[in-house]
Amino acid sequence: MKDRARHLDAADPLAAYRERFDVPEGVIYLDGNSLGCLPKATPDRLAEVVRGEWGTGLVRSWNDADWIAMPQRIGAKIAPLIGAAPHEVIACDSVSVNLFKLISAALAMRPGRKVVLSEPGNFPTDLYMIDGLERQGLAERRLAKRGDLPDALDEDVALLLLTHAHYKTGELFDMAALTRAAHEAGALVLWDLSHSAGAYPVHLGECEADFAVGCGYKYLNGGPGAPAFAFVAERHHDAVRQPLSGWMGHAAPFEFSDDYSPAPGVDRLLCGTPPILGMAALEVGVDLIAEIGVDRLYAKSKALSEFFRQCVSEHGVELDLVSPTDPDARGSQLSFRHGNAYALSQALIARGVIGDFRDPDILRLGFAPAYLSFTDIAEAASHLAKVLESGEWRREEFGKRAAVT
Amino acid sequence: MKDRARHLDAADPLAAYRERFDVPEGVIYLDGNSLGCLPKATPDRLAEVVRGEWGTGLVRSWNDADWIAMPQRIGAKIAPLIGAAPHEVIACDSVSVNLFKLISAALAMRPGRKVVLSEPGNFPTDLYMIDGLERQGLAERRLAKRGDLPDALDEDVALLLLTHAHYKTGELFDMAALTRAAHEAGALVLWDLSHSAGAYPVHLGECEADFAVGCGYKYLNGGPGAPAFAFVAERHHDAVRQPLSGWMGHAAPFEFSDDYSPAPGVDRLLCGTPPILGMAALEVGVDLIAEIGVDRLYAKSKALSEFFRQCVSEHGVELDLVSPTDPDARGSQLSFRHGNAYALSQALIARGVIGDFRDPDILRLGFAPAYLSFTDIAEAASHLAKVLESGEWRREEFGKRAAVT
Repeated sequence: MKDRARHLDAADPLAAYRERFDVPEGVIYLDGNSLGCLPKATPDRLAEVVRGEWGTGLVRSWNDADWIAMPQRIGAKIAPLIGAAPHEVIACDSVSVNLFKLISAALAMRPGRKVVLSEPGNFPTDLYMIDGLERQGLAERRLAKRGDLPDALDEDVALLLLTHAHYKTGELFDMAALTRAAHEAGALVLWDLSHSAGAYPVHLGECEADFAVGCGYKYLNGGPGAPAFAFVAERHHDAVRQPLSGWMGHAAPFEFSDDYSPAPGVDRLLCGTPPILGMAALEVGVDLIAEIGVDRLYAKSKALSEFFRQCVSEHGVELDLVSPTDPDARGSQLSFRHGNAYALSQALIARGVIGDFRDPDILRLGFAPAYLSFTDIAEAASHLAKVLESGEWRREEFGKRAAVT
Repeated sequence: MKDRARHLDAADPLAAYRERFDVPEGVIYLDGNSLGCLPKATPDRLAEVVRGEWGTGLVRSWNDADWIAMPQRIGAKIAPLIGAAPHEVIACDSVSVNLFKLISAALAMRPGRKVVLSEPGNFPTDLYMIDGLERQGLAERRLAKRGDLPDALDEDVALLLLTHAHYKTGELFDMAALTRAAHEAGALVLWDLSHSAGAYPVHLGECEADFAVGCGYKYLNGGPGAPAFAFVAERHHDAVRQPLSGWMGHAAPFEFSDDYSPAPGVDRLLCGTPPILGMAALEVGVDLIAEIGVDRLYAKSKALSEFFRQCVSEHGVELDLVSPTDPDARGSQLSFRHGNAYALSQALIARGVIGDFRDPDILRLGFAPAYLSFTDIAEAASHLAKVLESGEWRREEFGKRAAVT
């Protein structure tokens, strides 16, 4: 296995990019789908922003360092990763807050319809943001299992809200087909790209998606709690209105008018003052991922996860895979069901193999292709086999749940 | 004047704190009320968070570096600056987003009442967040001038939303009296502390305020676009519900349940994943301001602004002061009306005296007491006198408006 891994690494066109990330010694990091690794360029860029732009430039940097244009500039850089036009994407707030904006916008664009349709087991914050609008009396949440979604798309549905790659299983939705089905039912579609943007080639434009949101701190390597992004298809730019109408989304914020007038296009999704430190770190991550390109990243991610499955199988490990076996049907991860998945994940972490656990019984391993080698994968599989064979996951220390799991 | 300034500096108990900030050479910074200066401890702390906690710790730092508790920990440190209990304050999102949460919460707590009362000319984002809820059909915006506010508090008013220190003039509201008036009318009160927190001793508890929000990047020196904070009086902790019910505000976020159940107390104000880089910088600023203490800060700020007025007057400069002449009636700033206030502010910036302009005709000078000396003030006054005497503000270059003014 190790020989094969070495050969695969030697032939890997992305191998050199590992050096652009700060991957800690002794760690095999299979959790880039939770928090992406630190790009080596980030600390210097942040130091420049902090000491130079903030410390010396002070308030002048809103103009002189063009802080004011960061949300649009970073959005435009994210756009090609998700099949959008540069002016259709903006970096701002969190995924949750952007969900609220766009669910609200969709409801306002479909008067007489109140249902927001999603699936049970979608990432919680997606469902909870519908709940928030439901408690305001503005939405009605409806959940239907994957196979039942087309039937659940009736004339009450204002919006279909789905996560493209499932956070637990990595299973992908057919974006084109579901978008079409929603449109045929007169509904709009909002795609959560948190587990696909930057790792999987998304084609929002081709699929005629209406809205999307996505995460900056996973495959975009923007740092913990990085700003998120939001997409609005150009054809909706005049119609879209969202209730978090803060001053930065005003057509002329520095006129300090008493009355709100929305900025053109996606700019009206802005709310408060942009978080410049987070934006600066996000930009470094986005630049790097854009340089590598999502097509190459996804090709490598499939090769990595398939190689992992081979290695595990050759070790004689039998684990219940809950991700699709077809690599084209999943995002950049493999998830396994195990009755003691938490202890298993902790025992792996103790060996330097960082994956994660998702309640109640999922061991989730992410294959962020920008900085993982095939050698990492062979070693990770070997550690997993040893942890299972030895039963070392049964140690008491591995069973104690931390605050964040 | 210079001699007097030197004496005042020698007697200033806060003089040594200037060394704790990175005040650029050749700059007299009278804009700490827009973006506070960089604390000298911030770059190293950020480098530690970026290289150590993110780069090496990776996803483990949510537990190991206690990232998960930053919103509460920083909130508890802000609490004594605003007269709140530690568990009544949380650091999160932007001022705008927090306004939306708390306006919504107040409306839900006053069923049958839809009016949110504020004053014309309040900071735009405060008014725009009411507009957002009005467009959703959930609120009705009512504006009344300062003197007319008590009369405008009728049985339709759910919430009185005011900014404690006015962003343009620095004029302070009588928080205790207006809170009482609102309560007598059956309304709740939300105070925006953006221009008072960290510079003026706020007494939310004593005044029996219901809600408050405030800014992290002005007098708290948290950096450009720093996370904001929100306050909910303990007596409302069980009743408060807000629609931005993201996963971080869930009672058990890592159970990944399909249904939202709010976390106890102010934790339910959390929405998305906390922005750790911004939080880390904010914490350094808050620690430093808390160490100095707001009572001492405000005493010095009054002394600075009164000294500025003296110096300007001795230079024979006549400018129309729109801030209250009584230092006890204003926050940490002086604002002057001038037909060419923008050009004036630009001419001062060219001389290294950074204040700002607020549309249409206000020159706003802030006296952030943590890092300004009386010598700065004497020099700033002298520059202002020279700019006005010489008419150098008439130069064409000073009239061209930048994107951010």
